[in-house]
Amino acid sequence: MKLATIRTAAGTRAVRLDGEVLVDLGYTDLGALFAEPGWQDEAAAASGTAYPAEGADFAPVVPSPSKIICVGHNYTGHIKEMGRELPSYPTLFPKFAETLLGANDDIVRPAETEAFDWEVELAVVIGRKVRRADEEQAAGAIAGFTVMNDISVRDWQFRTIEWTQGKIWEATTPVGPYVVTPDEVGGVRPALEVRTVVDGQVMQRDDTGTLLFDPVFLVRYISTVITLNPGDIIATGTPAGVGNARDPKVFLLPGQTVTTEISGLGACVNKVAGA
Amino acid sequence: MKLATIRTAAGTRAVRLDGEVLVDLGYTDLGALFAEPGWQDEAAAASGTAYPAEGADFAPVVPSPSKIICVGHNYTGHIKEMGRELPSYPTLFPKFAETLLGANDDIVRPAETEAFDWEVELAVVIGRKVRRADEEQAAGAIAGFTVMNDISVRDWQFRTIEWTQGKIWEATTPVGPYVVTPDEVGGVRPALEVRTVVDGQVMQRDDTGTLLFDPVFLVRYISTVITLNPGDIIATGTPAGVGNARDPKVFLLPGQTVTTEISGLGACVNKVAGA
Repeated sequence: MKLATIRTAAGTRAVRLDGEVLVDLGYTDLGALFAEPGWQDEAAAASGTAYPAEGADFAPVVPSPSKIICVGHNYTGHIKEMGRELPSYPTLFPKFAETLLGANDDIVRPAETEAFDWEVELAVVIGRKVRRADEEQAAGAIAGFTVMNDISVRDWQFRTIEWTQGKIWEATTPVGPYVVTPDEVGGVRPALEVRTVVDGQVMQRDDTGTLLFDPVFLVRYISTVITLNPGDIIATGTPAGVGNARDPKVFLLPGQTVTTEISGLGACVNKVAGA
Repeated sequence: MKLATIRTAAGTRAVRLDGEVLVDLGYTDLGALFAEPGWQDEAAAASGTAYPAEGADFAPVVPSPSKIICVGHNYTGHIKEMGRELPSYPTLFPKFAETLLGANDDIVRPAETEAFDWEVELAVVIGRKVRRADEEQAAGAIAGFTVMNDISVRDWQFRTIEWTQGKIWEATTPVGPYVVTPDEVGGVRPALEVRTVVDGQVMQRDDTGTLLFDPVFLVRYISTVITLNPGDIIATGTPAGVGNARDPKVFLLPGQTVTTEISGLGACVNKVAGA
């Protein structure tokens, strides 16, 4: 299934993609759906109002996750290419609900930065509450996968050793358009091409099959520390090719369009707007 | 006013301390109270059920804040004593709602660590939604102050350069017992003694008047990045004397009692329990 949260005149709605239409699932958003035990059967069987998929206004797949945990340094190829040793543990940092945007929303570059950068990431969406998950529980807790553009405000990110203040800017991080269930992408450790394109130029390209810490490992690791709730999001890290690592550095400018896409999942396509 | 969230047979309740009793304010918790415009007058006037203050079961002052932002490296004396230069910007890192505990709850040391450390902190609780707050708006957005023991799992905190994974452990961080309004502690930049005592031994002692980045500055800085909502918590950093910086290092052990207290605000008194 491909599931989404769309904005309608009656507020946000959780929907399932059926060919050319989006079928209403009876919930305000995917976070509310995923909180329901047995949501998979319910979502598959639902037959509510059908909205045209074309021109749909996508909200963040989960508008108010209780937590968003992001991973740094996770693409094996990129780590080796930089001459670094493979890390023993994932590097974790946060985002918050207010940081999220829909898949096609404009991204307003804050007036406070000139170092506004892209990061395409495979994101895991949690579909079942877990703590200290074993392998099977972790696999079962994955509702599906989506695309996140982990937009980063580099000049704030590197003001101190902790990246948080460069990663949580309000309304900067598109996530969507769909949560695609694992059965549609080859399981809970999918090998999918990820790409970032800025105004037609490919900036990042890699394969999620090369992740050092895979989705199941990350659910296990993070759930050792804290409960993962339905709707929580884990962003699995970005490959080489971010603007900040280029020589010379390249950053997003108002007027540009940034596309982050993952084969089988779809794309976030966002115009960058000036503040 | 001294305000709290207590656990009762009917669930959590927001209360005001009146001498020997806690007066019900008509809200489930302080987060719900602070979301109400004009909550100050309402809280001052309320005359609901009175519960005995003695033996009250304190919940986290705000049980489900939308965000908890913590600050590192903020006590001037401690920074200078370590031979460091004063930083130009605050270092920020997160906690999450599930990380919080009540002021007198037992803290269960997770089985996964042997480096379980204390950090007394003055915490700011937000009482009004703000974004890009100016000086006056920032001051007005401070509902009050409370005590946080920013319990840190050092062996996980330092696995990578990002501290997040050592700071967000489930049910480890006491916050309370009261949110004390600024008028009771000398305003929005209070100079209060902070202390940590472990089994009778004073481990940390400093003065919040020496904070490099004061509460009003922090509200302005963080709200530049992201909206602060009523109930959100900013922990302002800890002074010298944490266990990890001692020679030899000292960590909390099951059976010990850790007290974090701030003059005028009260104390969190927590037994450490084994997993």
